[in-house]
Amino acid sequence: MRPAFDLSLYLVLDPVQCGGHEASLDVARAALAGGASIVQLRAPEWHKRAWLALARDLLPITRAHGVPLVINDHLDIALAAGADGVHVGQRDLPADVARRLLGPDALIGLSVSDAREVAVANALGDTIDYLGAGPVFATPTKTDASAPCGIDGLAALCSQARYPTVAIGGIQLHNAPDVMRARPAGLAVVSAICKAANPRDAAAHLRAAITRAQP
Amino acid sequence: MRPAFDLSLYLVLDPVQCGGHEASLDVARAALAGGASIVQLRAPEWHKRAWLALARDLLPITRAHGVPLVINDHLDIALAAGADGVHVGQRDLPADVARRLLGPDALIGLSVSDAREVAVANALGDTIDYLGAGPVFATPTKTDASAPCGIDGLAALCSQARYPTVAIGGIQLHNAPDVMRARPAGLAVVSAICKAANPRDAAAHLRAAITRAQP
Repeated sequence: MRPAFDLSLYLVLDPVQCGGHEASLDVARAALAGGASIVQLRAPEWHKRAWLALARDLLPITRAHGVPLVINDHLDIALAAGADGVHVGQRDLPADVARRLLGPDALIGLSVSDAREVAVANALGDTIDYLGAGPVFATPTKTDASAPCGIDGLAALCSQARYPTVAIGGIQLHNAPDVMRARPAGLAVVSAICKAANPRDAAAHLRAAITRAQP
Repeated sequence: MRPAFDLSLYLVLDPVQCGGHEASLDVARAALAGGASIVQLRAPEWHKRAWLALARDLLPITRAHGVPLVINDHLDIALAAGADGVHVGQRDLPADVARRLLGPDALIGLSVSDAREVAVANALGDTIDYLGAGPVFATPTKTDASAPCGIDGLAALCSQARYPTVAIGGIQLHNAPDVMRARPAGLAVVSAICKAANPRDAAAHLRAAITRAQP
């Protein structure tokens, strides 16, 4: 049975932005205390042995909060660590491969950036669990990302999608209320928490903005 | 039962050096016709969906020659494609994780660059099947590689190792006889075949040099 999940405040944990392994654990603890509802580990600059060590140290922290930990891109790290799932992009291993390798209980998210990708995703049935739509705004975090969809574009993707859809790309506290107008299931943030002077407060402020915007 | 394998002419297939997906298939066919005895797919610049497509197209080719196909680093691609095994480095997922995820029949190789790494590898028992030792010479292919060990250093690593050990790093036809003096189980080449004007001839000339040097 696949666990329930809550996309409302989706932390993409980038250990380079956080400042390393230990700092990433601190950011995760703080963000969870501040209200993060799901954590994705994404460390594109890191070798897999370092990913695995961090994933293994993160799991007791996320589990203590009853929050899933998903791994960006690398199914093998998810399998090795016993993480709760993966998040794959359009050029990563296909979602059906992820489902086959990870099994029926894994949480699987897929990035989409346009109507065509949502249409393809909509045909995947319960192969996937949620979508990540964006980038909403231009962002320096992912240099290979698609063109920004903007808030109106995001709203169109969210209404087209048959899955809960989290918004990603350039989301910060100041634009969070605007992004919520597009009715995503939640907001995914990277630097807004990983680079915050106080990640707990940053998460709590985002959480409050999201709660205010929810119907 | 783990299949027999022959490290003598070990092709590291780099699809960027080959010139893309189709060109890589052509290089693989030619190298196998010329005497390559094992193929590793390594595409550090590529996204995983492209790796998977290439691995799936390579497998019927390597299987037709009775030669194993191993995947560099990414266990998930090996699992998804049904490849014969993986080759992992010191910063990739640990060999025991690879063995656990891939099962007893997979071929697992591990890169080593110094006596300490060989000593650790020697304690792994049948978790691994072979070692890749090097770089023998400086090489532009792997910019994050360790310092070159040279031929004397390679000889020391090969005699210390409890596993068949293939030499890698800067090996070309002109230095192949010298490298074989270190008594490796074989020579791993990248550009010497992938960038050759005639990959079949390049493989055949390397094969001849290796055969002449073997006791």
